[in-house]
Amino acid sequence: MTQDRSGMRRRTVLLGAALLPTFAKPFLSAPASAQASDPLPSWNDGAAKQAILDFVRTTTDPANPGHVPPDERIATFDQDGTLWVEHPVYTQVIYCFDRIPGVVARKPDLAQTEPFKTVLSDGLGALTKLSTPDLEKIAAAALSGMSVDDFRADVQRWLEIAVHPRWKRRYTDLVYQPMQELLHVLRDNGFKTCIVTGGGQDFVRAYAGRTYGIPPEQVVGSAGETAFGYAPDGKPRLTKEAKLLLNDNGPGKPENIDLMIGRRPVAAFGNSDGDREMLEWTTAGSGKRLGMLVLHDDAHREYAYGPAAGLPASKIGAFSQALYDEAKGRNWPVISMKNDWKRIFSFEM
Amino acid sequence: MTQDRSGMRRRTVLLGAALLPTFAKPFLSAPASAQASDPLPSWNDGAAKQAILDFVRTTTDPANPGHVPPDERIATFDQDGTLWVEHPVYTQVIYCFDRIPGVVARKPDLAQTEPFKTVLSDGLGALTKLSTPDLEKIAAAALSGMSVDDFRADVQRWLEIAVHPRWKRRYTDLVYQPMQELLHVLRDNGFKTCIVTGGGQDFVRAYAGRTYGIPPEQVVGSAGETAFGYAPDGKPRLTKEAKLLLNDNGPGKPENIDLMIGRRPVAAFGNSDGDREMLEWTTAGSGKRLGMLVLHDDAHREYAYGPAAGLPASKIGAFSQALYDEAKGRNWPVISMKNDWKRIFSFEM
Repeated sequence: MTQDRSGMRRRTVLLGAALLPTFAKPFLSAPASAQASDPLPSWNDGAAKQAILDFVRTTTDPANPGHVPPDERIATFDQDGTLWVEHPVYTQVIYCFDRIPGVVARKPDLAQTEPFKTVLSDGLGALTKLSTPDLEKIAAAALSGMSVDDFRADVQRWLEIAVHPRWKRRYTDLVYQPMQELLHVLRDNGFKTCIVTGGGQDFVRAYAGRTYGIPPEQVVGSAGETAFGYAPDGKPRLTKEAKLLLNDNGPGKPENIDLMIGRRPVAAFGNSDGDREMLEWTTAGSGKRLGMLVLHDDAHREYAYGPAAGLPASKIGAFSQALYDEAKGRNWPVISMKNDWKRIFSFEM
Repeated sequence: MTQDRSGMRRRTVLLGAALLPTFAKPFLSAPASAQASDPLPSWNDGAAKQAILDFVRTTTDPANPGHVPPDERIATFDQDGTLWVEHPVYTQVIYCFDRIPGVVARKPDLAQTEPFKTVLSDGLGALTKLSTPDLEKIAAAALSGMSVDDFRADVQRWLEIAVHPRWKRRYTDLVYQPMQELLHVLRDNGFKTCIVTGGGQDFVRAYAGRTYGIPPEQVVGSAGETAFGYAPDGKPRLTKEAKLLLNDNGPGKPENIDLMIGRRPVAAFGNSDGDREMLEWTTAGSGKRLGMLVLHDDAHREYAYGPAAGLPASKIGAFSQALYDEAKGRNWPVISMKNDWKRIFSFEM
């Protein structure tokens, strides 16, 4: 899900709604309410759902050799295409494009400079005309120069008004309901759920608390440098710089999990070649492990892309046949959106 | 506490003993046991102890305008000189020197190459003869080339046998008991306690769980890059590289707090000029804040260095008169080890 986004940047956030992991009821002793009897109501019965339930049962049962102590229960999730929609364009790319008129207003010389000139004239239509270095210039311009606090506030404002071209809904409405249920099942069973995204760490932190119940320190992503300094009034200030510090894609995912979390996950979920190394690193640990891939094979309810049934490769969310084969070889259950998910979005109630 | 250590590196760790923050009893409603009536028994009554108790009471009282919601209760602690002894030499420097014979055994050419030759002949006595670039070479050689798992295991083995030259005790016995009580008071009141050290993140993570009850994801420090790859048996492997990624000192402290934790702390504790920016960043936030500095003014029970009463400046743990003056100007209470601490170590029962 994360190719060609090395220019993405990060920031900080205080999320009032951020939830802390709960270590409440063990999985099997939950009361026999409807929720407890099926903690994954948006999932069809099948191998994918069964793999999740087996994993939770095994890792939380102290009598099972696959038991995992609570403080080692780390589960990592890619975001774009794994927790929410990534087509036709990564949400953060749209944010960056939307920011360019404001950037040019502050630096009018840019209006006659590429790639900004093309973005001003063509909007998102410019996307197909621009090279990766051009896109990095746009990301750098949109994601640097402001304080970390101002950036967070701007992302939050934008997410209130921006809508997806297909569903005409806010992007944060386009999270996958089955994955929300999975996050809850894991947290209810003592897992710390973390996002590990090729997208900008600061961007995702701005809404991860409200949207996923995941606090900022559990969001790992691509990150730019910040610079500590002082505002004119003498107050300390952290400014976002246009210099990449962490590229959280491919091998960068396990590297940055180690940097930021400091433990090897016991479960990992992704949907593209950029998640391969995270899945390998996670499932190579000793004891019970779970690695899963979301396959976008539902053109009707969402999108179809990737390797299943000869679906065409896609620049966004590239999921190669090689990864598909590796998943089979390593027993990573593949989640078919078409077959495994009863519904995709919460508004499809 | 953190000058001249830019070569320090990091790694990952699974700490069975790592504690998670508890959100149990509010401060004021604790039962009237001896512990509850004085949660800081190793502290003498005085301005420093009072400042801590006032801060906890204010931030945890929902009726107080200074109340801080639980998920925003972040407290950051420098380590060397703030949580444990840093004199006469940073513990990690001793570890690195101890590692050099093993490094040379694997690369015999180094035996005739400086600075390794001097380290082999003079041991820690070489310290005063070596330049900062020399020390960086030693750190890079001692802290890279192995897997993150092997590094953690080696640090843990070393800490079992290495002893401090003065007390003849393990380094992890030389944590300050009053600061341990402070960590506990904060955690008992819903604070997440984090270490933010100029020392190596991986080094500190190897013992922070057992020693401080702080899990790896709450240890931020100077960090080298890692490289994802595959061992000869095909298993994924993270190798420590000799390239600095994060220099967690001075302005690097707030920058890396933002990167790793993503929230501005409400309390911060340090003991040197390397903690200045962290204290400024923390205390410049809105609402109730606490910044404190540990002053090493007890030559009898520990060491005396820093600005108090004309004590000489020291390369290790440099605490300038300028920082001392800033602390007074900003109402950062200074903790006098001599006057504020009844005892320094737990073995002084």
